[in-house]
Amino acid sequence: MKRTKRERQTALKESINENPFVTDEELSAEFDVSVQTIRLDRMELSIPELRERIKHVAVRTFEDEVKSLPIDEVIGEIIDIELDEKAISIFDVKPEHVFQRNQIARGHHLFAQANSLAVAIMNEDLALTVKSELQFLRPVKAGQRIVAKATVIDRQPEKNRAFVKVVSTVDQVTVFIGTFEMYRMTEQSEGEAG
Amino acid sequence: MKRTKRERQTALKESINENPFVTDEELSAEFDVSVQTIRLDRMELSIPELRERIKHVAVRTFEDEVKSLPIDEVIGEIIDIELDEKAISIFDVKPEHVFQRNQIARGHHLFAQANSLAVAIMNEDLALTVKSELQFLRPVKAGQRIVAKATVIDRQPEKNRAFVKVVSTVDQVTVFIGTFEMYRMTEQSEGEAG
Repeated sequence: MKRTKRERQTALKESINENPFVTDEELSAEFDVSVQTIRLDRMELSIPELRERIKHVAVRTFEDEVKSLPIDEVIGEIIDIELDEKAISIFDVKPEHVFQRNQIARGHHLFAQANSLAVAIMNEDLALTVKSELQFLRPVKAGQRIVAKATVIDRQPEKNRAFVKVVSTVDQVTVFIGTFEMYRMTEQSEGEAG
Repeated sequence: MKRTKRERQTALKESINENPFVTDEELSAEFDVSVQTIRLDRMELSIPELRERIKHVAVRTFEDEVKSLPIDEVIGEIIDIELDEKAISIFDVKPEHVFQRNQIARGHHLFAQANSLAVAIMNEDLALTVKSELQFLRPVKAGQRIVAKATVIDRQPEKNRAFVKVVSTVDQVTVFIGTFEMYRMTEQSEGEAG
Protein backbone atom coordinates (compact mmCIF):
# COMPACT_ATOMS: atom_id res chain seq x y z
CA MET A 1 0.00 0.00 0.00
CA LYS A 2 1.38 3.37 -1.01
CA ARG A 3 1.77 6.08 1.62
CA THR A 4 -0.31 9.22 1.43
CA LYS A 5 1.49 12.35 0.29
CA ARG A 6 1.48 13.66 3.87
CA GLU A 7 3.04 10.42 5.17
CA ARG A 8 5.62 10.44 2.43
CA GLN A 9 6.57 14.07 3.11
CA THR A 10 6.95 13.40 6.84
CA ALA A 11 9.18 10.38 6.12
CA LEU A 12 11.11 12.35 3.49
CA LYS A 13 11.87 15.10 5.98
CA GLU A 14 13.18 12.53 8.46
CA SER A 15 15.32 10.85 5.81
CA ILE A 16 16.95 14.13 4.83
CA ASN A 17 17.48 15.10 8.46
CA GLU A 18 19.23 11.80 9.11
CA ASN A 19 21.39 12.05 6.00
CA PRO A 20 21.64 15.50 4.47
CA PHE A 21 23.84 14.00 1.71
CA VAL A 22 21.11 11.82 0.24
CA THR A 23 20.38 12.62 -3.40
CA ASP A 24 16.96 13.14 -4.98
CA GLU A 25 17.61 9.99 -7.00
CA GLU A 26 18.24 7.97 -3.84
CA LEU A 27 15.09 9.39 -2.26
CA SER A 28 13.12 8.58 -5.39
CA ALA A 29 14.20 4.95 -5.09
CA GLU A 30 13.55 4.86 -1.34
CA PHE A 31 10.01 6.20 -1.64
CA ASP A 32 9.23 4.59 -4.98
CA VAL A 33 8.14 7.87 -6.60
CA SER A 34 9.64 9.90 -9.44
CA VAL A 35 12.54 12.28 -8.94
CA GLN A 36 10.19 15.06 -9.98
CA THR A 37 7.83 14.17 -7.10
CA ILE A 38 10.73 14.33 -4.65
CA ARG A 39 11.65 17.78 -5.98
CA LEU A 40 8.07 19.01 -5.58
CA ASP A 41 7.95 17.53 -2.07
CA ARG A 42 11.14 19.33 -1.18
CA MET A 43 9.80 22.61 -2.52
CA GLU A 44 6.59 22.29 -0.54
CA LEU A 45 8.62 21.45 2.58
CA SER A 46 11.14 24.24 1.84
CA ILE A 47 14.03 21.78 1.94
CA PRO A 48 16.86 23.10 -0.24
CA GLU A 49 18.48 20.95 -2.92
CA LEU A 50 21.44 18.74 -2.04
CA ARG A 51 23.97 21.27 -3.28
CA GLU A 52 22.67 23.91 -0.89
CA ARG A 53 22.29 21.44 1.98
CA ILE A 54 25.93 20.40 1.61
CA LYS A 55 27.07 24.01 1.72
CA HIS A 56 25.37 24.71 5.00
CA VAL A 57 25.64 21.40 6.77
CA ALA A 58 26.45 21.83 10.45
CA VAL A 59 29.88 20.45 11.21
CA ARG A 60 29.95 18.66 14.55
CA THR A 61 33.08 17.00 15.83
CA PHE A 62 33.26 13.25 15.98
CA GLU A 63 36.09 13.29 18.50
CA ASP A 64 34.59 10.53 20.64
CA GLU A 65 33.61 8.30 17.75
CA VAL A 66 36.92 8.14 15.88
CA LYS A 67 39.40 5.71 17.44
CA SER A 68 42.30 5.33 15.04
CA LEU A 69 43.55 8.91 15.07
CA PRO A 70 42.88 12.26 16.77
CA ILE A 71 40.11 14.10 14.94
CA ASP A 72 42.37 17.05 14.10
CA GLU A 73 44.55 14.71 12.03
CA VAL A 74 41.69 13.99 9.66
CA ILE A 75 42.11 15.97 6.43
CA GLY A 76 38.74 17.57 5.77
CA GLU A 77 35.84 17.59 8.19
CA ILE A 78 33.96 14.46 9.13
CA ILE A 79 30.22 14.97 8.65
CA ASP A 80 29.06 11.48 9.51
CA ILE A 81 30.69 8.28 10.61
CA GLU A 82 29.66 4.77 11.51
CA LEU A 83 32.79 2.85 12.48
CA ASP A 84 33.67 -0.12 10.28
CA GLU A 85 30.77 0.76 7.97
CA LYS A 86 30.82 4.17 6.34
CA ALA A 87 31.87 7.78 6.75
CA ILE A 88 31.53 11.11 4.97
CA SER A 89 33.86 14.11 5.02
CA ILE A 90 33.98 17.43 3.25
CA PHE A 91 37.05 19.32 2.08
CA ASP A 92 36.94 22.89 0.81
CA VAL A 93 39.50 23.44 -1.92
CA LYS A 94 41.35 26.70 -1.28
CA PRO A 95 43.90 28.54 -3.44
CA GLU A 96 46.79 26.89 -1.55
CA HIS A 97 45.60 23.45 -2.68
CA VAL A 98 45.81 24.06 -6.43
CA PHE A 99 48.56 24.20 -9.03
CA GLN A 100 49.36 27.86 -9.62
CA ARG A 101 49.44 27.36 -13.33
CA ASN A 102 46.09 25.75 -14.07
CA GLN A 103 44.22 26.21 -10.77
CA ILE A 104 43.55 22.46 -10.58
CA ALA A 105 43.60 20.88 -7.10
CA ARG A 106 46.73 18.82 -6.52
CA GLY A 107 46.19 15.08 -6.33
CA HIS A 108 47.71 14.63 -2.90
CA HIS A 109 44.97 16.72 -1.29
CA LEU A 110 42.23 14.51 -2.73
CA PHE A 111 44.27 11.49 -1.68
CA ALA A 112 44.82 12.91 1.82
CA GLN A 113 41.10 13.50 2.38
CA ALA A 114 40.19 10.00 1.18
CA ASN A 115 43.06 8.23 2.93
CA SER A 116 42.49 9.88 6.29
CA LEU A 117 38.80 9.00 6.04
CA ALA A 118 39.79 5.38 5.36
CA VAL A 119 41.93 5.48 8.53
CA ALA A 120 39.22 7.19 10.59
CA ILE A 121 36.58 4.61 9.67
CA MET A 122 38.64 1.79 11.23
CA ASN A 123 37.36 0.71 14.63
CA GLU A 124 40.90 0.07 15.92
CA ASP A 125 43.64 1.97 17.72
CA LEU A 126 46.09 1.39 14.89
CA ALA A 127 45.29 1.61 11.19
CA LEU A 128 47.84 1.98 8.40
CA THR A 129 47.45 2.03 4.65
CA VAL A 130 49.08 -0.92 2.89
CA LYS A 131 47.97 -0.46 -0.72
CA SER A 132 45.86 1.96 -2.64
CA GLU A 133 44.46 2.38 -6.14
CA LEU A 134 43.42 5.85 -7.23
CA GLN A 135 41.54 7.32 -10.15
CA PHE A 136 41.50 11.06 -10.73
CA LEU A 137 38.46 11.47 -12.95
CA ARG A 138 37.81 15.20 -13.19
CA PRO A 139 39.77 18.31 -12.27
CA VAL A 140 38.67 20.10 -9.10
CA LYS A 141 39.13 23.86 -8.76
CA ALA A 142 39.61 26.26 -5.87
CA GLY A 143 36.31 27.22 -4.25
CA GLN A 144 34.77 23.80 -4.78
CA ARG A 145 33.71 21.52 -1.95
CA ILE A 146 34.70 17.86 -2.19
CA VAL A 147 32.36 15.38 -0.49
CA ALA A 148 34.13 12.05 0.16
CA LYS A 149 32.04 8.99 1.02
CA ALA A 150 33.93 6.00 2.43
CA THR A 151 32.50 2.49 2.67
CA VAL A 152 34.11 -0.61 4.15
CA ILE A 153 33.71 -3.10 1.31
CA ASP A 154 35.56 -6.11 2.71
CA ARG A 155 36.92 -7.33 6.04
CA GLN A 156 39.62 -9.94 6.60
CA PRO A 157 40.08 -9.89 10.39
CA GLU A 158 42.27 -13.03 10.34
CA LYS A 159 44.79 -11.08 8.25
CA ASN A 160 44.26 -7.79 10.12
CA ARG A 161 43.00 -6.30 6.88
CA ALA A 162 40.04 -4.23 5.81
CA PHE A 163 39.23 -2.73 2.42
CA VAL A 164 37.71 0.69 2.05
CA LYS A 165 36.33 2.38 -1.05
CA VAL A 166 36.14 6.16 -1.16
CA VAL A 167 34.15 8.06 -3.79
CA SER A 168 34.68 11.82 -3.86
CA THR A 169 32.24 14.12 -5.61
CA VAL A 170 31.81 17.81 -6.36
CA ASP A 171 28.18 18.81 -6.93
CA GLN A 172 27.32 15.10 -7.18
CA VAL A 173 29.79 14.53 -10.01
CA THR A 174 32.44 11.94 -9.17
CA VAL A 175 35.93 13.45 -9.30
CA PHE A 176 37.99 10.77 -7.54
CA ILE A 177 37.72 7.09 -6.58
CA GLY A 178 40.18 5.40 -4.25
CA THR A 179 40.35 1.90 -2.80
CA PHE A 180 42.46 1.35 0.28
CA GLU A 181 43.78 -1.87 1.76
CA MET A 182 44.17 -1.12 5.47
CA TYR A 183 46.24 -2.88 8.10
CA ARG A 184 44.47 -2.67 11.45
CA MET A 185 45.53 -3.74 14.89
CA THR A 186 45.08 -2.90 18.53
CA GLU A 187 48.02 -0.89 19.81
CA GLN A 188 49.80 -3.62 21.76
CA SER A 189 51.04 -5.15 18.51
CA GLU A 190 53.47 -3.60 16.12
CA GLY A 191 52.48 -2.40 12.65
CA GLU A 192 54.48 -3.59 9.70
CA ALA A 193 53.23 -1.26 7.03
CA GLY A 194 53.37 2.49 6.53
CA MET B 1 90.80 -7.03 -20.45
CA LYS B 2 90.28 -5.99 -16.85
CA ARG B 3 91.16 -2.47 -15.80
CA THR B 4 93.99 -1.85 -13.41
CA LYS B 5 93.04 -0.87 -9.88
CA ARG B 6 94.04 2.71 -10.59
CA GLU B 7 91.88 2.84 -13.74
CA ARG B 8 88.96 1.34 -11.84
CA GLN B 9 89.28 3.80 -9.01
CA THR B 10 89.37 6.75 -11.40
CA ALA B 11 86.27 5.49 -13.19
CA LEU B 12 84.58 4.74 -9.86
CA LYS B 13 85.14 8.28 -8.67
CA GLU B 14 83.60 9.61 -11.88
CA SER B 15 80.60 7.30 -11.59
CA ILE B 16 79.87 8.44 -8.06
CA ASN B 17 80.34 12.07 -8.99
CA GLU B 18 77.86 11.68 -11.80
CA ASN B 19 75.33 9.85 -9.65
CA PRO B 20 75.84 10.18 -5.90
CA PHE B 21 72.85 7.86 -5.39
CA VAL B 22 74.47 4.82 -6.97
CA THR B 23 74.71 1.86 -4.56
CA ASP B 24 77.80 -0.26 -3.91
CA GLU B 25 75.86 -3.17 -5.43
CA GLU B 26 75.25 -1.22 -8.63
CA LEU B 27 78.93 -0.20 -8.77
CA SER B 28 79.95 -3.81 -8.19
CA ALA B 29 77.90 -4.85 -11.22
CA GLU B 30 79.16 -1.90 -13.30
CA PHE B 31 82.84 -2.66 -12.64
CA ASP B 32 82.49 -6.42 -12.43
CA VAL B 33 84.20 -6.66 -9.04
CA SER B 34 82.87 -7.68 -5.61
CA VAL B 35 80.96 -5.31 -3.36
CA GLN B 36 83.81 -5.68 -0.88
CA THR B 37 86.27 -4.37 -3.51
CA ILE B 38 84.04 -1.37 -4.12
CA ARG B 39 83.97 -0.68 -0.38
CA LEU B 40 87.77 -0.87 -0.16
CA ASP B 41 88.09 1.40 -3.20
CA ARG B 42 85.78 3.91 -1.57
CA MET B 43 87.78 3.83 1.63
CA GLU B 44 91.04 4.37 -0.21
CA LEU B 45 89.46 7.24 -2.14
CA SER B 46 87.82 8.64 1.03
CA ILE B 47 84.37 8.49 -0.60
CA PRO B 48 81.72 8.10 2.10
CA GLU B 49 79.09 5.39 1.92
CA LEU B 50 75.82 6.07 0.11
CA ARG B 51 73.96 6.91 3.32
CA GLU B 52 76.41 9.71 4.12
CA ARG B 53 76.56 10.91 0.53
CA ILE B 54 72.77 11.24 0.46
CA LYS B 55 72.80 13.28 3.66
CA HIS B 56 75.21 15.83 2.29
CA VAL B 57 74.29 15.94 -1.34
CA ALA B 58 74.34 19.47 -2.67
CA VAL B 59 70.84 20.60 -3.55
CA ARG B 60 70.81 22.67 -6.71
CA THR B 61 67.63 24.00 -8.20
CA PHE B 62 66.34 22.55 -11.42
CA GLU B 63 64.17 25.56 -12.14
CA ASP B 64 65.12 25.71 -15.79
CA GLU B 65 64.85 21.99 -16.42
CA VAL B 66 61.38 21.34 -15.03
CA LYS B 67 58.60 22.35 -17.45
CA SER B 68 55.35 21.01 -16.05
CA LEU B 69 55.24 22.99 -12.79
CA PRO B 70 57.18 25.70 -10.92
CA ILE B 71 60.01 24.10 -8.95
CA ASP B 72 58.60 25.35 -5.62
CA GLU B 73 55.50 23.22 -6.19
CA VAL B 74 57.53 20.04 -6.15
CA ILE B 75 57.16 18.29 -2.79
CA GLY B 76 60.68 17.39 -1.69
CA GLU B 77 63.84 18.59 -3.39
CA ILE B 78 64.83 17.48 -6.83
CA ILE B 79 68.40 16.16 -6.85
CA ASP B 80 68.61 15.01 -10.42
CA ILE B 81 66.31 15.07 -13.41
CA GLU B 82 66.38 13.99 -17.01
CA LEU B 83 63.05 14.92 -18.58
CA ASP B 84 60.95 12.01 -19.86
CA GLU B 85 63.52 9.58 -18.48
CA LYS B 86 64.21 9.68 -14.75
CA ALA B 87 64.38 11.92 -11.72
CA ILE B 88 65.36 11.76 -8.06
CA SER B 89 64.08 13.79 -5.14
CA ILE B 90 64.66 13.76 -1.39
CA PHE B 91 62.13 14.51 1.33
CA ASP B 92 63.08 14.96 4.97
CA VAL B 93 60.35 13.65 7.25
CA LYS B 94 59.70 16.16 10.02
CA PRO B 95 57.48 15.89 13.12
CA GLU B 96 54.61 17.64 11.29
CA HIS B 97 54.51 14.83 8.71
CA VAL B 98 53.84 11.96 11.13
CA PHE B 99 50.83 10.63 13.04
CA GLN B 100 51.09 11.97 16.61
CA ARG B 101 50.22 8.62 18.03
CA ASN B 102 52.74 6.30 16.43
CA GLN B 103 55.20 8.75 14.82
CA ILE B 104 54.74 7.08 11.44
CA ALA B 105 54.85 9.35 8.38
CA ARG B 106 51.40 9.90 6.89
CA GLY B 107 50.80 8.28 3.54
CA HIS B 108 49.86 11.45 1.72
CA HIS B 109 53.33 12.92 2.20
CA LEU B 110 54.97 9.89 0.56
CA PHE B 111 52.36 10.10 -2.17
CA ALA B 112 52.88 13.86 -2.61
CA GLN B 113 56.65 13.46 -3.04
CA ALA B 114 56.23 10.65 -5.57
CA ASN B 115 53.33 12.23 -7.44
CA SER B 116 54.95 15.62 -7.81
CA LEU B 117 58.12 13.93 -9.10
CA ALA B 118 55.97 12.08 -11.65
CA VAL B 119 54.57 15.45 -12.75
CA ALA B 120 57.99 17.13 -12.81
CA ILE B 121 59.55 14.45 -15.01
CA MET B 122 57.04 15.15 -17.82
CA ASN B 123 58.53 17.18 -20.66
CA GLU B 124 55.24 19.05 -21.21
CA ASP B 125 53.56 22.22 -20.01
CA LEU B 126 50.59 20.32 -18.65
CA ALA B 127 50.75 17.04 -16.78
CA LEU B 128 47.97 15.59 -14.62
CA THR B 129 47.69 12.31 -12.77
CA VAL B 130 44.97 10.03 -14.14
CA LYS B 131 45.50 6.83 -12.14
CA SER B 132 47.87 5.61 -9.51
CA GLU B 133 48.68 2.40 -7.67
CA LEU B 134 50.50 2.67 -4.36
CA GLN B 135 52.18 0.26 -2.00
CA PHE B 136 53.24 1.38 1.46
CA LEU B 137 55.82 -1.24 2.38
CA ARG B 138 57.50 -0.03 5.56
CA PRO B 139 56.76 2.69 8.09
CA VAL B 140 58.87 5.85 7.84
CA LYS B 141 59.63 7.90 10.95
CA ALA B 142 60.40 11.55 11.61
CA GLY B 143 64.08 12.35 11.06
CA GLN B 144 64.40 9.95 8.14
CA ARG B 145 65.21 11.03 4.60
CA ILE B 146 63.15 9.54 1.79
CA VAL B 147 64.89 9.21 -1.58
CA ALA B 148 62.35 8.85 -4.41
CA LYS B 149 63.55 7.62 -7.82
CA ALA B 150 61.14 8.09 -10.70
CA THR B 151 61.47 6.34 -14.06
CA VAL B 152 59.31 6.74 -17.15
CA ILE B 153 58.45 3.10 -17.90
CA ASP B 154 56.05 3.55 -20.83
CA ARG B 155 55.04 6.25 -23.29
CA GLN B 156 51.82 6.40 -25.31
CA PRO B 157 52.07 9.77 -27.06
CA GLU B 158 49.09 9.02 -29.33
CA LYS B 159 46.92 8.87 -26.20
CA ASN B 160 48.72 11.72 -24.42
CA ARG B 161 49.76 9.25 -21.78
CA ALA B 162 52.99 8.36 -20.00
CA PHE B 163 53.57 5.87 -17.19
CA VAL B 164 55.96 6.61 -14.35
CA LYS B 165 57.20 4.27 -11.64
CA VAL B 166 58.48 5.78 -8.41
CA VAL B 167 60.44 3.76 -5.85
CA SER B 168 61.06 5.49 -2.51
CA THR B 169 63.73 4.27 -0.13
CA VAL B 170 65.11 5.11 3.31
CA ASP B 171 68.70 3.96 3.80
CA GLN B 172 68.35 1.87 0.63
CA VAL B 173 65.35 -0.02 2.00
CA THR B 174 62.25 0.37 -0.16
CA VAL B 175 59.42 1.98 1.79
CA PHE B 176 57.00 2.90 -1.00
CA ILE B 177 56.31 2.05 -4.63
CA GLY B 178 53.92 4.03 -6.80
CA THR B 179 52.98 3.80 -10.46
CA PHE B 180 51.38 6.80 -12.08
CA GLU B 181 49.45 7.07 -15.31
CA MET B 182 49.97 10.64 -16.45
CA TYR B 183 47.98 12.74 -18.88
CA ARG B 184 50.30 15.13 -20.70
CA MET B 185 49.61 17.90 -23.12
CA THR B 186 50.94 21.20 -24.31
CA GLU B 187 49.02 24.06 -22.77
CA GLN B 188 46.97 25.07 -25.81
CA SER B 189 44.76 22.02 -25.30
CA GLU B 190 42.46 21.40 -22.40
CA GLY B 191 43.12 18.73 -19.78
CA GLU B 192 40.35 16.34 -18.89
CA ALA B 193 41.69 14.72 -15.75
CA GLY B 194 42.58 16.00 -12.31
